[in-house]
Amino acid sequence: MASNYPNFRRSVPWLILFLEVVFIIFTYILPSDDEVSLLSVTYPAFQDVNHMLILGFGFFLICLRRYGFSGAGFNLLIIALGVQCSMLIEDVLFFYLGSQYEDTMRKMTKAAVSMTAVVISTGAVLGKTNPVQLILMTIVEIIVFYISRWMNSRFLQIAGNMTVMHVHLFGAYFGLAVSSRFPKPALRSEKNASTPKSDLLSMLGTLFLWIFWPGFNSALAESRSRAVYNTYFALAVSAVTAFVLSVLTTKDGRFRMTHIRSAVLAGGVTAGFVADSVEHPWIAMILGLLASVIAVLGSYCLQGCLHPALKIHDTAGVHFTFGLPGVLGALAQVILLAIKEWATMPRLAELVVNHIGACCLTISVALITGLITGLILNLKLFKTVPVSKYFDDQFYWEFPHLAVGF
Amino acid sequence: MASNYPNFRRSVPWLILFLEVVFIIFTYILPSDDEVSLLSVTYPAFQDVNHMLILGFGFFLICLRRYGFSGAGFNLLIIALGVQCSMLIEDVLFFYLGSQYEDTMRKMTKAAVSMTAVVISTGAVLGKTNPVQLILMTIVEIIVFYISRWMNSRFLQIAGNMTVMHVHLFGAYFGLAVSSRFPKPALRSEKNASTPKSDLLSMLGTLFLWIFWPGFNSALAESRSRAVYNTYFALAVSAVTAFVLSVLTTKDGRFRMTHIRSAVLAGGVTAGFVADSVEHPWIAMILGLLASVIAVLGSYCLQGCLHPALKIHDTAGVHFTFGLPGVLGALAQVILLAIKEWATMPRLAELVVNHIGACCLTISVALITGLITGLILNLKLFKTVPVSKYFDDQFYWEFPHLAVGF
Amino acid sequence: MASNYPNFRRSVPWLILFLEVVFIIFTYILPSDDEVSLLSVTYPAFQDVNHMLILGFGFFLICLRRYGFSGAGFNLLIIALGVQCSMLIEDVLFFYLGSQYEDTMRKMTKAAVSMTAVVISTGAVLGKTNPVQLILMTIVEIIVFYISRWMNSRFLQIAGNMTVMHVHLFGAYFGLAVSSRFPKPALRSEKNASTPKSDLLSMLGTLFLWIFWPGFNSALAESRSRAVYNTYFALAVSAVTAFVLSVLTTKDGRFRMTHIRSAVLAGGVTAGFVADSVEHPWIAMILGLLASVIAVLGSYCLQGCLHPALKIHDTAGVHFTFGLPGVLGALAQVILLAIKEWATMPRLAELVVNHIGACCLTISVALITGLITGLILNLKLFKTVPVSKYFDDQFYWEFPHLAVGF
Repeated sequence: MASNYPNFRRSVPWLILFLEVVFIIFTYILPSDDEVSLLSVTYPAFQDVNHMLILGFGFFLICLRRYGFSGAGFNLLIIALGVQCSMLIEDVLFFYLGSQYEDTMRKMTKAAVSMTAVVISTGAVLGKTNPVQLILMTIVEIIVFYISRWMNSRFLQIAGNMTVMHVHLFGAYFGLAVSSRFPKPALRSEKNASTPKSDLLSMLGTLFLWIFWPGFNSALAESRSRAVYNTYFALAVSAVTAFVLSVLTTKDGRFRMTHIRSAVLAGGVTAGFVADSVEHPWIAMILGLLASVIAVLGSYCLQGCLHPALKIHDTAGVHFTFGLPGVLGALAQVILLAIKEWATMPRLAELVVNHIGACCLTISVALITGLITGLILNLKLFKTVPVSKYFDDQFYWEFPHLAVGF
Repeated sequence: MASNYPNFRRSVPWLILFLEVVFIIFTYILPSDDEVSLLSVTYPAFQDVNHMLILGFGFFLICLRRYGFSGAGFNLLIIALGVQCSMLIEDVLFFYLGSQYEDTMRKMTKAAVSMTAVVISTGAVLGKTNPVQLILMTIVEIIVFYISRWMNSRFLQIAGNMTVMHVHLFGAYFGLAVSSRFPKPALRSEKNASTPKSDLLSMLGTLFLWIFWPGFNSALAESRSRAVYNTYFALAVSAVTAFVLSVLTTKDGRFRMTHIRSAVLAGGVTAGFVADSVEHPWIAMILGLLASVIAVLGSYCLQGCLHPALKIHDTAGVHFTFGLPGVLGALAQVILLAIKEWATMPRLAELVVNHIGACCLTISVALITGLITGLILNLKLFKTVPVSKYFDDQFYWEFPHLAVGF
Repeated sequence: MASNYPNFRRSVPWLILFLEVVFIIFTYILPSDDEVSLLSVTYPAFQDVNHMLILGFGFFLICLRRYGFSGAGFNLLIIALGVQCSMLIEDVLFFYLGSQYEDTMRKMTKAAVSMTAVVISTGAVLGKTNPVQLILMTIVEIIVFYISRWMNSRFLQIAGNMTVMHVHLFGAYFGLAVSSRFPKPALRSEKNASTPKSDLLSMLGTLFLWIFWPGFNSALAESRSRAVYNTYFALAVSAVTAFVLSVLTTKDGRFRMTHIRSAVLAGGVTAGFVADSVEHPWIAMILGLLASVIAVLGSYCLQGCLHPALKIHDTAGVHFTFGLPGVLGALAQVILLAIKEWATMPRLAELVVNHIGACCLTISVALITGLITGLILNLKLFKTVPVSKYFDDQFYWEFPHLAVGF
């Protein structure tokens, strides 16, 4: 039996240890700044982001019947690694590129927000990657995301807060590009399915994400209060719309769990781009409605046409949950900016071009680097998982349990 | 197969869309006030209430073996709808009746607290209503609750903070009245039962409610710190007493999960009325003890005598979890007021009459409007669920899962 | 059937009621201080500790396949009792020993932090004690812990904040000593095992503990911000290291859930001693790494050699999860102090002796009183649970459920 299961003893530990040694040495070398007593403002904000990443996505990724341990466990692993890596990049940026000074708590919050990109990408390749591939993807993606942000703010004059909010877009398209390079699993295999129980846990994950999203969108916002209530209204409308559309589009007029799971959150993704700047809640509400529509219709179009054509398999449906609503958010941001700055024509054109450019740049960088990463990760060197072993906890975890149906 | 399942395509979507359009138009028409930077005080408070509603009640309502999706899912749906409706009413009240000005975050918190009434009512009719009935009940109940509050504060001079705390009373009795108009399910049917697993999830929901209750009771309180610790002590004593009474009252001296689930929370309900004003924690502790006693004894008396006599079926036991402890809380409030204002006789009599009147008014309004709502919801128009299809997720949700026991 | 199950009607209720009456009377007698409006600082801090105790440990203790109700339920019971008892001791100390004045919210936070000791001890005897034994253990342990803290601060001049952080050490060794006096269960019995589902819930508990730990360590810290990020980094590194070591030490190079569960948290325990004072995050990171190493290696050495030799059965593995990382933290504290105060020789020696003394004192008191408590609890008087009924919810809870596999 053991021979069927390649063990990761020769690769995983040394890769992780190497990374940890690098992180610790750099943390030692780089100057650590002392606290500036801004804690009362930002610790709860950091907590919101942290809860969302660990609990929300941890539960959310328990959507496959046999992949619960790996879903929640590997999520913790890559977040713990990725946040350290992200902090390091922040420090390097500050030290060598002279970016703005920020205290540790704010840097941690930014690092955690940036990690959302990786966690979203994980959703696209869930069950198809081994831990070595996952860790490499994490490191590469987080570095490339910082480069993409730097390009956005350097060449296109996008504000720092805004570049971070491209995290959903980047995460979704990077994940899809990586996923496209992995062999496709058999359709409707027994393992690649949910059970009522895994669906229930996954829905609870959606609830966690839903309640922490206003905190997530407002964590780095300038006008926190406005970001909170705009996000909340967008989420409320998209939750309601998700139920409407699910009934309208399924064959016998019942609710489909995957619709609810993705469309309920779409409003939060879209609101991320504009929560800070929208002045009237009704705009956020309309965006929430549109986001939900796009998520449900997207789930049909993409899974029916585009993905089979491009041979992409998207385990947790990140394309329509995070990708399309992200594009909508970026568009909404441009349109709202255009309306606001209508009077100042020349500046308007520049703004519009820059924002559309930033959106395209983020998606392009994500797709190109994702494809390259996907190609590299599928080298034989990394012991790719055979398709027959996809979506299976037993491949990675000891099961000394009695033979009890999961 | 599909013919057995009436589809909701012709009713649910259009009802929801109509409501959403109304909400968005009104939000557009009514003036939106700008933030007043009170966020640091109230966003965590709003979060406590929001977590309690979505997570606490979401888990709490997964107590039936086959109704987990609907329990947690419809809970999200009605909260998302109800909070919008509630915000709208707040705005209308402000605009037309000239009520006190409040910033958005505080209005959202009040809206969320008010929605607790609806969520509690949902517990009484859990598994017996279809989504259309649930949505109509939500809208009617939230409007009637505001009218009841307005009557309390207009005619009986009850303070605004206090009228909101009638939410448990109102929710429980409205729900019971609605439930009394629905056909009763067969006793001890296979579906109307819990499994160890659904009980466990439901207990976790109780834990969530338990930890967020101090935040809930203090969210709108004037003396937040005092409200927090009084509620905490009341909850602690009622949790302990719940175990005592469960052992004393079951046949073979073991713990019964339904006792624990309801009596543990009774202290929080009772404390809601007085948490703000009680000066000595020992009073809160005694109230917690009494609340727990009333919840456990109530569960026997009501389920054994009153409910069968009145032909009421109360799925989640909201009568003894929220109703009776609420009555106790209202009484305690009157008694404590009477002791405090003993010196000022004339004013005392007025205060006592007003407070007892408010409690009776709330319950009467809840019962009468609940009965009417129940009658209307059982019109053939709304495609009532046949008793044989009660408590069944499959009636509303797609189950493409492999045949795995839930 | 009922005859096999001794009922607790004659003991549990009267014991609990007696305790409650004592608590309420003392709360009545002792003067209650009015609030000092420090809420904005400390309510979220209290919440972090409270969430960790109720939710984190509640889920964490659902690790046995048939002991979920008792794991989460009894946890709530003893916390509700223990916090009241702990508050009372705080009041008595203030009143009779003239300790420093503190407002209610801070006392509640300290009481909740102190209760962690009891909850950890519970992990060691999980499934082997009946409720009476558990309640007695709670009361004795919390009193002895306060005595141990008082000795530390009186004779060894350890600061109050620091003595509270001995909570993990005390809890682990007290629990082990108590557990050593209980009959050992059969190895690998069917009940003393986890299922994939109970493992999953228990892992979710670990996630809860992981996210609330920075709040826990910083709740009473002077420099909250620093305590938060040092703890976070220690936790991140120990989470990553846990995966490394699990792959390296299992037979076929797969992850073992018990490793992940304990080693992921080890960093938080170790950081508790120094989070407040470490000036450079890299030190916290190295401590997290060492804590994780000690937890995984400890799990092999202890379970393979020490525990069988000493006839100790440690259900939830508290020795290597909380005990050994706690010792490491105490050592690290001494070493860091020594480095910091290197210049001032005479004072240095005293400091080092005092801190090592405090650690030894805490462990000794825990072991001695734990042994005595264990001996007393195993008197026939307390109706000890027969080994064949260990780890079984049905012994304590009604199961009216249909015969459905758990």
